[in-house]
Amino acid sequence: MNIRPTVPATNAPLLLRTDEGAVAVLTFNRPQTRNLLTEGMLGALREAFTAIAGDRKVRAVVLAAEGQVFCAGHDLREMTAHRSDADGGRGYFKQLFDTCSTMMQQVVNLPQPVIAAVEGTATAAGCQLVAACDLVIASSTAKFGTSGINVGLFCSTPMVAVSRKVSRKHAMELLLTGDLIPAPEAYRIGLVNRVVEPGRALAEATALARKIAEKTPAAIRLGKQAFYRQAEMSMADAYRLTSDVMADNMMEPDTIEGITAFFEKRKPNWDDR
Amino acid sequence: MNIRPTVPATNAPLLLRTDEGAVAVLTFNRPQTRNLLTEGMLGALREAFTAIAGDRKVRAVVLAAEGQVFCAGHDLREMTAHRSDADGGRGYFKQLFDTCSTMMQQVVNLPQPVIAAVEGTATAAGCQLVAACDLVIASSTAKFGTSGINVGLFCSTPMVAVSRKVSRKHAMELLLTGDLIPAPEAYRIGLVNRVVEPGRALAEATALARKIAEKTPAAIRLGKQAFYRQAEMSMADAYRLTSDVMADNMMEPDTIEGITAFFEKRKPNWDDR
Amino acid sequence: MNIRPTVPATNAPLLLRTDEGAVAVLTFNRPQTRNLLTEGMLGALREAFTAIAGDRKVRAVVLAAEGQVFCAGHDLREMTAHRSDADGGRGYFKQLFDTCSTMMQQVVNLPQPVIAAVEGTATAAGCQLVAACDLVIASSTAKFGTSGINVGLFCSTPMVAVSRKVSRKHAMELLLTGDLIPAPEAYRIGLVNRVVEPGRALAEATALARKIAEKTPAAIRLGKQAFYRQAEMSMADAYRLTSDVMADNMMEPDTIEGITAFFEKRKPNWDDR
Repeated sequence: MNIRPTVPATNAPLLLRTDEGAVAVLTFNRPQTRNLLTEGMLGALREAFTAIAGDRKVRAVVLAAEGQVFCAGHDLREMTAHRSDADGGRGYFKQLFDTCSTMMQQVVNLPQPVIAAVEGTATAAGCQLVAACDLVIASSTAKFGTSGINVGLFCSTPMVAVSRKVSRKHAMELLLTGDLIPAPEAYRIGLVNRVVEPGRALAEATALARKIAEKTPAAIRLGKQAFYRQAEMSMADAYRLTSDVMADNMMEPDTIEGITAFFEKRKPNWDDR
Repeated sequence: MNIRPTVPATNAPLLLRTDEGAVAVLTFNRPQTRNLLTEGMLGALREAFTAIAGDRKVRAVVLAAEGQVFCAGHDLREMTAHRSDADGGRGYFKQLFDTCSTMMQQVVNLPQPVIAAVEGTATAAGCQLVAACDLVIASSTAKFGTSGINVGLFCSTPMVAVSRKVSRKHAMELLLTGDLIPAPEAYRIGLVNRVVEPGRALAEATALARKIAEKTPAAIRLGKQAFYRQAEMSMADAYRLTSDVMADNMMEPDTIEGITAFFEKRKPNWDDR
Repeated sequence: MNIRPTVPATNAPLLLRTDEGAVAVLTFNRPQTRNLLTEGMLGALREAFTAIAGDRKVRAVVLAAEGQVFCAGHDLREMTAHRSDADGGRGYFKQLFDTCSTMMQQVVNLPQPVIAAVEGTATAAGCQLVAACDLVIASSTAKFGTSGINVGLFCSTPMVAVSRKVSRKHAMELLLTGDLIPAPEAYRIGLVNRVVEPGRALAEATALARKIAEKTPAAIRLGKQAFYRQAEMSMADAYRLTSDVMADNMMEPDTIEGITAFFEKRKPNWDDR
């Protein structure tokens, strides 16, 4: 979260989408205002994810950002404007956090894997978004933090995503101190999958997305969905669910071809591309 | 857990409390008997946490120890004395473990963050207490273990706290072997937040507590409570809860001031201190 | 998972069992066919675990393998033969995954700890089996992966075990890429407890098993069972369960002797061996 300085109005889209083959790259395009999750930006993200969810051509998504700040979370100025509402803003705030939570869950529920490419700083709901992604590639100069506590706003919604990716003592240290941690520490605690050289996050994330896009999408879709569902179940229920998912997966034409190609020691000739 | 040698009776309090500004430091004060969790010590801890929970002046708690042993867990001698009870001691043991479990949950449910400052050895229920704390600062000479299995008593209650902080394979290795691990390994597996030079654990933990005590307490209280609640929920329920907590947090006077101060690029002038 | 080349029929047992004192060593004995989890192998594992569960002489189990591949998962050729079933194989596949899931849960529910000794490569359901074990000793040359996605079959059942041992971002990277990771990386993410020199995995795992076998089995049995049960509970319920388990554990004759021996500074003289 951050102050929004007065900047010249711009007609450029808030969020860019560039498809490279089966990989859709979404790029935050408000570097002047630290890519804040304004109502407009949240709407753009929700629309983009809804479109991608229904777009069979897209097999993997990269989430990147223009500028030195990946995303600084909510727009406190936009929020503060609602202090003058009849209810002091509570109704607006609740709706805003609900909208944001819905967007975060879209990332988790999206059929395609989402890879964050973090070159700069991701704080508060910006850090939450990174945590919500399936995978994260960070530049060695990237920084992460749940810094809301520094203005008196504990990062309670961000912690839902962060505490499901890193252990409790690490999550609590981020939440209670509000400190930023550098990429290597984020790697150590499991918030980040890989740390790359400065300027390389987007390229490496896109390469990884391309690699995943070469797998058969039906399997990725079934598997990703089952992953987050089984994670909330008892072991016995998780096995009941996934045993069924595996049997379904076996019946997919691409899987039949994949296994046949494996026996024949050749590359699979997958229909679905 | 450890043998209690015969030592001269002492009238010194079992547990010291020293408040330094908004930080309450609790110190185990039975170094001669390895700061065992006797009935008396459990009672002293429960009273101290109850008092602190209702004490708005306290914003963070440090838990430290006199002597080379942070805490060696339950007092096996006191327990063994109840073998001659009509039921062989079972009723007493059950009550003792219930009391201890209640105390451990007080740490988790306390409105204020609790930071363990571990200079020496924390074993069995002593290790459990460290794991139950929100954050842990350990000296490089500190050691940790769930050693009950070495006398035939699997650390079943300690594992509730330990397995909620470290991964299952690490918890199982501690539980099955009964081995002590040094602070750097405890840091690697996520049981400890920071390792500091010998003799520095209390000073570093207190500095961290002071830093957290400077945040606005309403936000810390709301956030800490929500953290452990949401951790036991599905993602969807966790977002429902925390979205509401965030909206409540926004309505706190200190948060309004914190955000205003942020816009005005000055330190917040928080009422609540 | 892997292709099964045509190999000479063998009458050698699929799975060897060698008891060394209180340690049962189970060894996959189909190195020619990468120790695949054929129907036969699954049956042999299920029988072995059933026998061990009822065998009070066994206090710890080591799971090892002949050859360079620890276990390559399901036998795709055996499965593919059922494509010609009336239902295209779905009923067979479902039953196979159910059987395999039952076997994996036998490992978790076995009264005795199970230690995997991994010298080679463990993939797909082979990696799942490693993750299901309580502890893992790996040679520095061992490799791990959930590689099913490479043939279009997302490792959905394996992820139940893997995602309960490593954090979500690490699990997702394994699942989505299908890549193998070397033992040191498996150690870093917590899939493996210890990495040892090539050729040493079995010896080190057996030494660790012997050490655990010297503890009192009643405590290990109560504790292991309670560990996985409490891991699926809320903290409050987990304390309710384990407080009771601790009281039961205190009443075990071996525990009474263990504590007495501790007071008397001598080795316990445990009946149960």
